[in-house]
Amino acid sequence: MAGYLDARPRVGYFYTGKTGAELLGDKVKHITVKHYQSRPIVVQESASVYDAIVTMFLEDVGTLFVVDKQTTLVGVLSRKDLLRASLGKQALESIPVSIIMTRMPNITVCQRDDLITEVAKKLIDKQIDCLPVVTEVDFGSGFEVIGRITKTNITALLVDLANDEVI
Amino acid sequence: MAGYLDARPRVGYFYTGKTGAELLGDKVKHITVKHYQSRPIVVQESASVYDAIVTMFLEDVGTLFVVDKQTTLVGVLSRKDLLRASLGKQALESIPVSIIMTRMPNITVCQRDDLITEVAKKLIDKQIDCLPVVTEVDFGSGFEVIGRITKTNITALLVDLANDEVI
Repeated sequence: MAGYLDARPRVGYFYTGKTGAELLGDKVKHITVKHYQSRPIVVQESASVYDAIVTMFLEDVGTLFVVDKQTTLVGVLSRKDLLRASLGKQALESIPVSIIMTRMPNITVCQRDDLITEVAKKLIDKQIDCLPVVTEVDFGSGFEVIGRITKTNITALLVDLANDEVI
Repeated sequence: MAGYLDARPRVGYFYTGKTGAELLGDKVKHITVKHYQSRPIVVQESASVYDAIVTMFLEDVGTLFVVDKQTTLVGVLSRKDLLRASLGKQALESIPVSIIMTRMPNITVCQRDDLITEVAKKLIDKQIDCLPVVTEVDFGSGFEVIGRITKTNITALLVDLANDEVI
């Protein structure tokens, strides 16, 4: 009976004292990043702003992750960053993305076992659209990107919750 | 007891037969657009692409609505539309937004009493970031924009649901 009633010998059913919202909380709090993450799209730090914009359109994503030659995360590029850069007078082919990207350690990250509600809170608090899902490499000195989680994933979760299709 | 138990004279409490997910559905299905909408940011259809980009940065939004002189909705501009336009060779000051915007009737709209779950579904199905909240004007021949609802609003709703702060 979904946690509302419990049973004891010689007592019978009793109300567990949990409210609907508490149970909803319990339910949502079992959903982690790995259930809803998308695949990450990355560009090399030597790529030009023009290449990054083309990649963004080809892959139809709102955020790109920038990696170095060891595929370690070094930066994040949003549509906003690219739009700002494209207003400048310089040729976009000649500007490397490393000039305009948001750099580590100013990047908020998450891991695949983090709660989706915690990630949603980070997205709202930091006013960003997307978090990279990472694993630590080199004894914690760097991160490898293994996924991305966006407001689109969170919206899809709400649709699943309303349709009662949540795992 | 949140809908799980009901009472009858001479029977006592009984289980209503609703599952936790059904009650969650019941709960979410009372939340409408007006509880979570943001204010809309509009530009005139005569504005240039450059003006639109500047407005987008000043107001820090991802979507602008384009209106005619009677403040009727005629188009929508996303960051993606503006980024695409900025790749062209033409001066952005000389291109009016009406050339690059998505036009009526290809715009998906919603109203303030629509369910937030329906709006979330539209955002996912149509792969868009934002819907204008509208009211009909001129006997249904046009729409006036009174708000916007974005994936950010939906993410904020999920945070409220997890914190048990939903109205």
